[in-house]
Amino acid sequence: MTPSSDPRSAKSATRIREELARRSTTARAVLEQALDVVVAREPTVRAWKLMRDAPARQRADALDGDLDRRDGGLLAGIPVAVKDLMDTADMPTAYGSTIYAGHQPARDAACVARLRAAGANILGKTITTEFAYFSPGETTNPWDAARTPGGSSSGSAAAVAAGMVPLALGSQTAGSLIRPASYCGVFALKPTHGVFDLQGVKGLSPSLDTLGWLARTANDLELMRCALLDEPFAPLPDMPASGCRVGVLRTHEWAEAQPDGQAAFEEAVRRLQASGMTLIGKDMPGEQATLAQDQKRVMAYEAARELAFELEHHADALSRPLRELLNQGRALTQAEYLAAQARAAVGRQVAQALMADVDALLVPAAPGEAPLGLDATGDPVFSRVWTLLGLPCVSVPGLRGPHGMPIGMQLVGHRHQERALLALAASVHIVLDTPL
Amino acid sequence: MTPSSDPRSAKSATRIREELARRSTTARAVLEQALDVVVAREPTVRAWKLMRDAPARQRADALDGDLDRRDGGLLAGIPVAVKDLMDTADMPTAYGSTIYAGHQPARDAACVARLRAAGANILGKTITTEFAYFSPGETTNPWDAARTPGGSSSGSAAAVAAGMVPLALGSQTAGSLIRPASYCGVFALKPTHGVFDLQGVKGLSPSLDTLGWLARTANDLELMRCALLDEPFAPLPDMPASGCRVGVLRTHEWAEAQPDGQAAFEEAVRRLQASGMTLIGKDMPGEQATLAQDQKRVMAYEAARELAFELEHHADALSRPLRELLNQGRALTQAEYLAAQARAAVGRQVAQALMADVDALLVPAAPGEAPLGLDATGDPVFSRVWTLLGLPCVSVPGLRGPHGMPIGMQLVGHRHQERALLALAASVHIVLDTPL
Repeated sequence: MTPSSDPRSAKSATRIREELARRSTTARAVLEQALDVVVAREPTVRAWKLMRDAPARQRADALDGDLDRRDGGLLAGIPVAVKDLMDTADMPTAYGSTIYAGHQPARDAACVARLRAAGANILGKTITTEFAYFSPGETTNPWDAARTPGGSSSGSAAAVAAGMVPLALGSQTAGSLIRPASYCGVFALKPTHGVFDLQGVKGLSPSLDTLGWLARTANDLELMRCALLDEPFAPLPDMPASGCRVGVLRTHEWAEAQPDGQAAFEEAVRRLQASGMTLIGKDMPGEQATLAQDQKRVMAYEAARELAFELEHHADALSRPLRELLNQGRALTQAEYLAAQARAAVGRQVAQALMADVDALLVPAAPGEAPLGLDATGDPVFSRVWTLLGLPCVSVPGLRGPHGMPIGMQLVGHRHQERALLALAASVHIVLDTPL
Repeated sequence: MTPSSDPRSAKSATRIREELARRSTTARAVLEQALDVVVAREPTVRAWKLMRDAPARQRADALDGDLDRRDGGLLAGIPVAVKDLMDTADMPTAYGSTIYAGHQPARDAACVARLRAAGANILGKTITTEFAYFSPGETTNPWDAARTPGGSSSGSAAAVAAGMVPLALGSQTAGSLIRPASYCGVFALKPTHGVFDLQGVKGLSPSLDTLGWLARTANDLELMRCALLDEPFAPLPDMPASGCRVGVLRTHEWAEAQPDGQAAFEEAVRRLQASGMTLIGKDMPGEQATLAQDQKRVMAYEAARELAFELEHHADALSRPLRELLNQGRALTQAEYLAAQARAAVGRQVAQALMADVDALLVPAAPGEAPLGLDATGDPVFSRVWTLLGLPCVSVPGLRGPHGMPIGMQLVGHRHQERALLALAASVHIVLDTPL
């Protein structure tokens, strides 16, 4: 990435809102800036499954011609990307699979309808892995085209990281938001499970599937949250470091972090401590060491049910890894599945007790820098437990690894306390992003 | 209904299975019997949104020509009805709404794919209320065409009650399985929330939406459960009355039962007691009196999100009651919604404690006999709490009201103990169905 295309110079959604409100820009100008970045970067990044710039221009012009409406919606005039796992009534939706090449849904997913109602200008659909599992599309990491952007929300993470759009919708079943955010150096929020509607989002594992989104600032994540909830937006409150209490948890999966990932985590701990935050060491009891495996079991069992039609009628068009997952899932009994779910329920209570005296847990977001190669999307190991427990998670960018690639830090918050978690994430980001 | 068309003479799915296995009938003969009943009863009952008899005949013949396959699937050769809320790749699916008239989904719902894999011969789609809310289709009650069959699984309940099919898929968000089963005099199972996959079933409120099914025997409910789980089937164990422990709960909604419903409930209590079952009086604490209202809040909030596209683009094509529900839901804040969910979580713990010493709770299934008139589907008041708590429920037929209409009894079981609940339901049915 050349300095001139550094996405940190791209405007945030909240800044675009302010400029639109004081009439110092137009929705059309905002859109053209976004499209300029797409033209410059898309040949390398390949974030988009499809883009529809002509209707986007018409919508921008219509908004500029109706300033009442432009001032109304929380996302009015904001260019937004939508993962191609989400149905759109005006664009084909293929879920990352050849089975659905050219498939035109009859309606918008509920989240898409809500974004449009909030005025978002949806430019197109971003590349997802096959049915949000592992088989990658062609998207590259905006910081190094030889490396994966992560997945499954590959295109959404890359589009935001490359400065094409300030906001993008994604989803997570294992680590599909937090990992690409870490690899691409952007923020991502995976909210508490079950709060944000998934109607029209192709499912993989309903107990785990969670709508989420990516942005370059914590405030933009909050803006999107409010827009999706149809509630008023207020900027995140400042959280002075002295008021922040963070649990430091190296997790049962610590040995699966790479040396660069472990080093970044220790660097984050040092910096947060030096900033004046209160850091408290935490350990998950040994009984919870199976939770990452339990997440795999739940996902396999539910995916085999969720994709029953595709497995029955299009098995040959499924990738081998996905077919293996589904066959593993079919081989599990309901009793085995319910046992994994019962351990998850205990895990939720244990985690709640563990977090009673802190605002959030600090855990790795990914094993380390984005791996070289585009034939795999990296390992979601550091997200599996938190997705299974349904807790809100945010990936906070700022640190870099030995190859200059981003390494995110994951904050795990209290159930339904997304706003507090994002405020903490903003404070943590300031500390992590400061050059030494 | 004339005695000659009494559905109690129609064969159960388990009996059809046995006859097919010992070659005393064929899938084609089974189908033709079903179609004969359809021809005789459908002009009055109007259970079907659409029926495809020609492909059903082809499938039956194909199965009869491949006896290995016919012996294989749990539902091989069994005629089954599917609520028109569930996507079918070979039949249009309209979700009870003019918005989707003629809409052809690209795939089968996961439950439909599973039924087909188990060999079920799906005859067509049964009438649902609008998006599984209240506005009724044209289905009548098979016992009295001047009365509602209940809803939202109206056509599925009526088709089973009229003897057209032994098994039908439905779903419940408030009382959409238990109430029509009670009104139509058939069994229905609403399993524990979250176990049976809803991919491809149009959603109304994901925290509440539950796949379920209707049949004329408890063993048929168990057969369908095993087929959907892809697990082996064994007939339900006999539960001697002396081993059955039933909690008797008149619920906070007791005053909303009609005199005929209250009388039937007291009759059920007397009979079960006389049969030798252990009956234990139960009360939900006063703090849980809001749960029925909380169910309404959760449903309204989630429905407004789930149907965001339809509300945004097709508001004029929505019935007034549904529009009101969605507008109520939009007016609720996330905080109000989460407060209702928090009370539900407490309610789950209270119910678990209340049920610790019994196999199930006996509660009303509906206020009483099916009301006169086809412009409303009756009141789901006696199902709201149990759907909110996510507990498995079964409606057990047998009793009759003063007009000769069926009145079901609802048994509420322990989480994930569907098989035990159905075994109890079979024993309870024997007691309720015995003429005095």
